[in-house]
Amino acid sequence: MDKVRVIEVKQSVFADNNAEADRIRRELKEKKTFLINLMSSPGAGKTTTLVRTIADLKDELRIGIMEADIDSTVDAETISAAGAKAIQIHTGGMCHLDAGMTEQGLRELGAEDFDLVVLENVGNLVCPAEFDTGAAKNVAILSVPEGHDKPLKYPLMFQVCHALIINKTDVLPWFDFDMEKVVAYAHMRNPDLAIFPVSAMTGEGFDAWENWLRTEAAAWNG
Amino acid sequence: MDKVRVIEVKQSVFADNNAEADRIRRELKEKKTFLINLMSSPGAGKTTTLVRTIADLKDELRIGIMEADIDSTVDAETISAAGAKAIQIHTGGMCHLDAGMTEQGLRELGAEDFDLVVLENVGNLVCPAEFDTGAAKNVAILSVPEGHDKPLKYPLMFQVCHALIINKTDVLPWFDFDMEKVVAYAHMRNPDLAIFPVSAMTGEGFDAWENWLRTEAAAWNG
Repeated sequence: MDKVRVIEVKQSVFADNNAEADRIRRELKEKKTFLINLMSSPGAGKTTTLVRTIADLKDELRIGIMEADIDSTVDAETISAAGAKAIQIHTGGMCHLDAGMTEQGLRELGAEDFDLVVLENVGNLVCPAEFDTGAAKNVAILSVPEGHDKPLKYPLMFQVCHALIINKTDVLPWFDFDMEKVVAYAHMRNPDLAIFPVSAMTGEGFDAWENWLRTEAAAWNG
Repeated sequence: MDKVRVIEVKQSVFADNNAEADRIRRELKEKKTFLINLMSSPGAGKTTTLVRTIADLKDELRIGIMEADIDSTVDAETISAAGAKAIQIHTGGMCHLDAGMTEQGLRELGAEDFDLVVLENVGNLVCPAEFDTGAAKNVAILSVPEGHDKPLKYPLMFQVCHALIINKTDVLPWFDFDMEKVVAYAHMRNPDLAIFPVSAMTGEGFDAWENWLRTEAAAWNG
């Protein structure tokens, strides 16, 4: 009944997740595969952001997507319809992916066939930040309706990320969201964070985000 | 510097969280304290919903609030300003509260002095659903910007709750959110779920939610 391949992953048996993550990262570097770990709250727009990014970059980069969810295949179906290869990873109730689980997904996807692989992590601002997946870069999405105070409340997510997408700028007029404050709070957690306000609905701000992605992928794969 | 009392809670030492939760529930029943465990994604509007609920019910019920967060005291400050007694619970990085952590908060708050205590859990649709806190009722908030597919992706949260508040109905025109679908999906997970579409910003729908709360608290405390 599922239209996409579903992989049931199991929690890693490795005692040292960081060592596994480092090994995965080295192997991906050799294969010239740039892996992004994309994290956010539920409903911040990870899938919609990916659909637009795929549409814009699919002629330049071979893109593969791993959609992690506790249940359902709705996201992988959406991504497949957008024209990228996607697999669905089911975590069996787990609130995050670790390095071993990520590696099971990479194997099923066939990571070596892609220039860019995006792991769409479980929607959760807490636990995914605690586990290195082996990705080259961590990217978080915060959406305008969630409020500008989130870097104060969920510090680790903002500390471990290299880039922050602030999504749903199209609804800024309808929310009490202070862009200057969120940038200041996020940089308080991580001064090196690259921040991209975007609207995945309208495409506003995608040039800057995609330039970052293109540049980082080229540097990794080069 | 903090304007509110901050409690640093530690993960429970009890092997059987469910047994502890049952014990806490029995003690709260004896004290005539109705404890609600309020859960949602980050930014769904737990605090704003509480502020309005406190304003509407504070002359009928003695209300105490426990604000759980990984860091910051912004929510407890907001609640204190709204006129309820509030304490801030810091979880030291933990993504949820268990029964033992909840009990530490109840003790500091002085649960016996209140008819209604609300535990505002850590913003997370995954982990808090796995731990019985000892609350009489579990309540989840899903907000319109998160999308109507969330009961498909985060099944346990909808299964363990007694009531679901669907917040931010004021921004329905700006989002692709299907109210009929979300109600159907949520009832698929839990046919007995009481569902209240509201706007914590405008107050729309609060009568029904507050009637439910009033009735359930009276039944518990009666």
